[in-house]
Amino acid sequence: MERGITEHSTAKPDAAPELKIKLQIYCGKEIAMGPGKADLLEAIAREGSISAAARALGMSYRRAWLLVDTMNRCWSEPLVETGPGSPGRAGAHVTGLGASVIAAFRKMQDRALGLRDAGEWEGLREMLRGSPKQHQKD
Amino acid sequence: MERGITEHSTAKPDAAPELKIKLQIYCGKEIAMGPGKADLLEAIAREGSISAAARALGMSYRRAWLLVDTMNRCWSEPLVETGPGSPGRAGAHVTGLGASVIAAFRKMQDRALGLRDAGEWEGLREMLRGSPKQHQKD
Repeated sequence: MERGITEHSTAKPDAAPELKIKLQIYCGKEIAMGPGKADLLEAIAREGSISAAARALGMSYRRAWLLVDTMNRCWSEPLVETGPGSPGRAGAHVTGLGASVIAAFRKMQDRALGLRDAGEWEGLREMLRGSPKQHQKD
Repeated sequence: MERGITEHSTAKPDAAPELKIKLQIYCGKEIAMGPGKADLLEAIAREGSISAAARALGMSYRRAWLLVDTMNRCWSEPLVETGPGSPGRAGAHVTGLGASVIAAFRKMQDRALGLRDAGEWEGLREMLRGSPKQHQKD
């Protein structure tokens, strides 16, 4: 009885199996663009500063700054420019190149998601369990 | 002069920018199939045991065993079966389902690589530097 209750209460509802597809663009050993950097660029475009973008994404300012620094060193021109902005407020904006890079990257991500419509994935998902079989305790 | 020599000797040759595409199949929070697990399955099929496959991939036996255990718990039937094999030698083989899963996964990976032929990637790679700009030391 207790065992039955325990099993019931800890069993997770079956989730649909998922195919994750991650695109990363490398420049040498550094990642010039990936899912996290694309999200950050969009947040900077929206928020108008690196610090506000970091806050919106729950990321430290230091980490956001490092990601921007890497992007700016990997592409032919900076993707983000910081400026004095209004007095007492350091703003940042996404450059024209930055906007082009985001658009092309998102388009590639969309194309990649098309793999989920392919026959291989249909066949594989049918053979997956809803959740992993648990180890038997004895 | 010394600076020139230093720059020359530490400069890495420009590598072609690379688009990496990683496919991962999730079952709940566990990864049922991904690049590392696919490589391991192929090595087991080739080597005939988990320990020989681990050795061939430079992976610890423990890690290989854990990856096999996860795969076997995520799919409707095991992808790898271990058996007594010949006396004194514990063998392992990839099941029919395991072979189907590898084939479908590799096919999806091949399709994903087709993204490299898309116009977006052509455009992006032209805007990437051969290697990241180094920080200026001062």
